[in-house]
Amino acid sequence: MAASAPSSSAAEPEPNSAYLRPPTSGFLQKNNSLDEKSRIGGSFKERQSSKNVLSCENRDPRFGHTETDFSNLFARDLLPAKNGEEPTMQFLLEVVDILTNYIRKTFDRSTKVLDFHHPHQLLEGIEGFNLELSDQPESLEQILVDCRDTLKYGVRTGHPRFFNQLSSGLDIIGLAGEWLTSTANTNMFTYEIAPVFVLMEQLTLKKMREIVGWPGGEGDGIFSPGGAISNMYSVMVARYKYYPEVKTKGMSAAPRLILFTSEHSHYSIKKAGAALGFGVENVILLKCDERGRVIPADLEAKIIDAKQKGYVPLFVNATAGSTVYGAFDPINEIADLCEKYNMWLHVDGAWGGGLLMSRKHRHKLSGIERANSVTWNPHKMMGVPLQCSAILVREKGLLQGCNQMCAGYLFQPDKQYDVTYDTGDKAIQCGRHVDIFKFWLMWKAKGTSGFEQHINKCLELSEYLYTKIKNREGYEMVFQGEPQHTNVCFWYLPPSLRGMPDCPERRERLHKVAPKIKAMMMESGTTMVGYQPQGDKVNFFRMVVSNPAATKSDIDFLIEEIERLGQDL
Amino acid sequence: MAASAPSSSAAEPEPNSAYLRPPTSGFLQKNNSLDEKSRIGGSFKERQSSKNVLSCENRDPRFGHTETDFSNLFARDLLPAKNGEEPTMQFLLEVVDILTNYIRKTFDRSTKVLDFHHPHQLLEGIEGFNLELSDQPESLEQILVDCRDTLKYGVRTGHPRFFNQLSSGLDIIGLAGEWLTSTANTNMFTYEIAPVFVLMEQLTLKKMREIVGWPGGEGDGIFSPGGAISNMYSVMVARYKYYPEVKTKGMSAAPRLILFTSEHSHYSIKKAGAALGFGVENVILLKCDERGRVIPADLEAKIIDAKQKGYVPLFVNATAGSTVYGAFDPINEIADLCEKYNMWLHVDGAWGGGLLMSRKHRHKLSGIERANSVTWNPHKMMGVPLQCSAILVREKGLLQGCNQMCAGYLFQPDKQYDVTYDTGDKAIQCGRHVDIFKFWLMWKAKGTSGFEQHINKCLELSEYLYTKIKNREGYEMVFQGEPQHTNVCFWYLPPSLRGMPDCPERRERLHKVAPKIKAMMMESGTTMVGYQPQGDKVNFFRMVVSNPAATKSDIDFLIEEIERLGQDL
Repeated sequence: MAASAPSSSAAEPEPNSAYLRPPTSGFLQKNNSLDEKSRIGGSFKERQSSKNVLSCENRDPRFGHTETDFSNLFARDLLPAKNGEEPTMQFLLEVVDILTNYIRKTFDRSTKVLDFHHPHQLLEGIEGFNLELSDQPESLEQILVDCRDTLKYGVRTGHPRFFNQLSSGLDIIGLAGEWLTSTANTNMFTYEIAPVFVLMEQLTLKKMREIVGWPGGEGDGIFSPGGAISNMYSVMVARYKYYPEVKTKGMSAAPRLILFTSEHSHYSIKKAGAALGFGVENVILLKCDERGRVIPADLEAKIIDAKQKGYVPLFVNATAGSTVYGAFDPINEIADLCEKYNMWLHVDGAWGGGLLMSRKHRHKLSGIERANSVTWNPHKMMGVPLQCSAILVREKGLLQGCNQMCAGYLFQPDKQYDVTYDTGDKAIQCGRHVDIFKFWLMWKAKGTSGFEQHINKCLELSEYLYTKIKNREGYEMVFQGEPQHTNVCFWYLPPSLRGMPDCPERRERLHKVAPKIKAMMMESGTTMVGYQPQGDKVNFFRMVVSNPAATKSDIDFLIEEIERLGQDL
Repeated sequence: MAASAPSSSAAEPEPNSAYLRPPTSGFLQKNNSLDEKSRIGGSFKERQSSKNVLSCENRDPRFGHTETDFSNLFARDLLPAKNGEEPTMQFLLEVVDILTNYIRKTFDRSTKVLDFHHPHQLLEGIEGFNLELSDQPESLEQILVDCRDTLKYGVRTGHPRFFNQLSSGLDIIGLAGEWLTSTANTNMFTYEIAPVFVLMEQLTLKKMREIVGWPGGEGDGIFSPGGAISNMYSVMVARYKYYPEVKTKGMSAAPRLILFTSEHSHYSIKKAGAALGFGVENVILLKCDERGRVIPADLEAKIIDAKQKGYVPLFVNATAGSTVYGAFDPINEIADLCEKYNMWLHVDGAWGGGLLMSRKHRHKLSGIERANSVTWNPHKMMGVPLQCSAILVREKGLLQGCNQMCAGYLFQPDKQYDVTYDTGDKAIQCGRHVDIFKFWLMWKAKGTSGFEQHINKCLELSEYLYTKIKNREGYEMVFQGEPQHTNVCFWYLPPSLRGMPDCPERRERLHKVAPKIKAMMMESGTTMVGYQPQGDKVNFFRMVVSNPAATKSDIDFLIEEIERLGQDL
């Protein structure tokens, strides 16, 4: 049988046998824990102590949660165990103490962004942090240590100097929303078990469609597990609109269908093409100008070419905010071609969709109201915690028609409420995580105006960076002109490369600069920024700003750090 | 332009202008909040007060978090705002207070499972709970009220009498894990930004493969957003194994491919067939015996039939724990046929996979070690919070081969660490939520043995229910014999239907009984259990037990409640 079949549990302590011991010993004395505590700023108790309120706290042990000795408590002593309420509350407050310490330090610039270790180091178990799972339970004391260690060896994506991904920052309201979501622990598929969340999703999607510009906010949509899946939905829905028989008969019922997307677009369109049975060959990449924007004439030429071969151009993806350059494809010109050739227009605004919230910047998505579908990830530019991605569809009924299988055990037509509120049959998922609440709560707390301010501020910061480095010695911009989004793409040239004429050797050496600097950055833990090659361009840095904690001083720091680490390369 | 373009924010209060006021007024005086507080057990402050420690707490306002007046605080006053640390901590502690109250009440049988309202009632705004989003921010006081209201009008899926879905219960360790996960707020795609989580996923998947029975735990896998997506992966990988050219050329490069799954299986196989371009017509449903288990002879007949038509049988899904009956298909007999006809064997153990953890019950999945892929959702029978679903694949490299697109901006080959740890190119997603940590933490805290105990206990409870009702007046079992899983399927016959001979009128009336009782249950909020028709069988109750909080008394209560509500129908 299985190698890890559970072993006998004869030696286990009795449930509920020991907890709430007097504070004589406990995890404060453990090395690992002490170590971590000194690193991330001391326990709740220690902090209170330094404020001279510990004496007060000590008078009633029910009040001070660090009084509990977790070394003899186990998961089985928590709710629903008999008498489990008190240890449950103490345990959760201790966890919250760990988390609030982490949050405090995340926003503290004197804290490292990360404490880098190689996989083999973590697997070997650093300072007793043991990742292996075992047959027997560990004490809650050990579980708390594990929580601390997990955070200790992770990456602070909310740190003001974390610029590594399109998603960064730690929004406190969004975080509170996630804590509530996981406490509610329910599923989006029916109104029956998620009444409030289902309605929040409906209202929020309508608001997003209004902002896209569809009359009255009409249409459809769903939150999906990320932009790649949202883009996949767009392709599925487009196929269903034009060739509904594919649902029953498969791709052989349709002619050879062609999808178009730019060479700078996100790879998820190709993934969708592969997964959904189109084939990557039938995902035609379009040429871009030097700024990474699709060239409409190239699209038209390729549409004509496909038609001449007897293929059917089905779908165009216009990117609003490309991953690397932050480029916005000219949606109106693409929409004209889609109308002319009767094709589905999808706008991938996973990254750039957030700019719709800004009166100053939304013109960059001009024409988006002509799209048939839109991907928009609030978890990127709007700072919502991961994951939060919406697929919006202009025509109602297509999502449902495309995906529904009418499972009787979930979507009973004879429920007592209006079952059109059940969302499950629109999705390719069955169970679906509640991604809406944190976003809804942030919108309530910030207002549309708060998102606008956030977006404007991020774009100002990237303009600051662009202005700072465009003529600075040792920098070369990857493309000329002010970036459309917060993406600033540049090469840093160490002094040894400056003045060297363009030649294969220079290119080869320059290609290695960004990875080397990045590796040193991660080793020193001071900041993180992305790099990549693009087309025939060697590795360059891609700076992006979506973190509300970032300021000009952090941008200055990044530049200083690149120069400090890179000057001798 | 958009109807909801943000309006001017001239009238906004200054950031950081007012917080930490003396406790003279505030949200405790709001009706809605008071109302909720009395319902869910009082605020933290009130509870402390009843314990006579309030006087102590009041001495230092830094300590008692309810001292803060949130009515003049806004999201913009929280971190990263200047001086934002203190209000951030106070706000988060207040949120935690709301959540711990909710948790306390969730396990309290005197609390309702839900407070049902129709969609239109919630949309109209009950007791001031306004779901609409606005341009201007709301105060943190209002945000806290919104959090309370969201929980108030939701469904307590962790309540000991919530039996409505395969996922139920609220595991405290898992919950703590989710809170930490959302605080870490990172993404699974690279080791670079999720080093600890990536390793936890790798080790946990290996452990799961060992338990499945694959030698040395070898193979591959990934956590995906739910069982439907995991099943979709299995179909994609099977297609890639036999027809890798489909990835580039599309479905037209393959012959007509046939997928087999039972008439009792989850609808996600059909969804996958539709989405991936096979067509639902090419998903052949297999006949089941009276217990809902696939009849292998029917599979072989249908394989032969497909071959005779010139189609290619590609894939068989064997269900381990069907959704309604909890049936386990005979995996070994199906595996024999898959070997004989060179087909991919997938085992959908989304619901039944958990039984692998029990030495007593794992024989029901005998033969699973012969599968090419396995879906296993820890968020169902193992009580892990939503979402947590794994797709396991026996052959290494297929997931990567099938899905990789080698995006340069994420998966740079020239990173300083071993990039084989980057998981993103195995997935159809790009960003991927961290679903592993809560599961890993639960495994640490409970041990393999703890999961075993949980599973054995749930199966004992369902045996108790089965024994109780199988000969009880007014009950008819949907299938005879002891259930294989915790699913107990039965009709309740009100006295008016007892003794009536089987005829269309009886069937028609019986069909309406379960929906009526369920509606009354939801209106009274006492318990929740699922119902559905199946094939030619009219609506019946499907009871399932996965909630660790449930006891025999809750089973008794369910029966009493069905009889109380149904006796006059």
